[in-house]
Amino acid sequence: MDLGVFVRDIPDFPKPGVVFKDVTPMLKDPDAFRECILQMSSLVEGLDFDTIVAPEARGFIFAAPIAFHTRKALVPVRKPGKLPYETLEIDYELEYGKATLQMHIDAIHKGAKVLIVDDILATGGTMKAIAEMIEKCGGEVISILCLAELNFLRPREKLARYDVRTLISY
Amino acid sequence: MDLGVFVRDIPDFPKPGVVFKDVTPMLKDPDAFRECILQMSSLVEGLDFDTIVAPEARGFIFAAPIAFHTRKALVPVRKPGKLPYETLEIDYELEYGKATLQMHIDAIHKGAKVLIVDDILATGGTMKAIAEMIEKCGGEVISILCLAELNFLRPREKLARYDVRTLISY
Repeated sequence: MDLGVFVRDIPDFPKPGVVFKDVTPMLKDPDAFRECILQMSSLVEGLDFDTIVAPEARGFIFAAPIAFHTRKALVPVRKPGKLPYETLEIDYELEYGKATLQMHIDAIHKGAKVLIVDDILATGGTMKAIAEMIEKCGGEVISILCLAELNFLRPREKLARYDVRTLISY
Repeated sequence: MDLGVFVRDIPDFPKPGVVFKDVTPMLKDPDAFRECILQMSSLVEGLDFDTIVAPEARGFIFAAPIAFHTRKALVPVRKPGKLPYETLEIDYELEYGKATLQMHIDAIHKGAKVLIVDDILATGGTMKAIAEMIEKCGGEVISILCLAELNFLRPREKLARYDVRTLISY
């Protein structure tokens, strides 16, 4: 099944000149979504990881079924003020301005073997920030798994230290 | 398996006097999370629905694996400005102030049979707003499924028109 046909281009979102990759048509097709989760899980089959870390909110849509299917721990990374327990946080640069993400301090133990999951890999900035937060906790980033990557933004340059796997390239 | 032991009380979050139900310890335990998804899916087994609608962000964590497991369509409901395609929106009252949620206009077709999924059912205000948005599109709300409900907030009074199913009651 060609999953690419279930990703819709939305021009000028979230700002003029940007073409947004909208995965909601795939979510609406049960066979396509199922196939997507199975194919993403297959991409990391055989890798030795015990924990999946994912940023809100679209990351949860892919990471949660993959965690369910592969029987791994699931750790949410969220925007400030959303996680109720004690958190550690990381600030990082966006194309314009800054962003902050938080993770519970008890989420990643020393020696945890982590897979980071998200939907679309764009500049790689968010993935890099999350990877560094995991390493700060003593975890090891085994791989980064996304449905699709925007090659023209060169995310793999920013993530050169990491193993990166995606189903679709644009 | 008693899933209740994997839900942690966080006092005074998000504001003084509120005890927040934190599901992250369950997400961190692969067996408990798996059991949770299977038990939630069992609660709606035999119901005739084709679509699962869930609000961001914690709703996605439960709805996405249930959609994967039960092979249903998944429709995300999000805060304003997050969904890229044309949206319809609904304003609703919170305990203090107002909130707005959006859904893609092509997400629910006339005659869709919908299950709404979230983690914790508190006042029922969000669920009621989502149910009315689905009905405005011509969809039918077959049931509302949550991991846990806060009975002392009487959500079932607000949702008297709907079938409501939960695994845990507080």
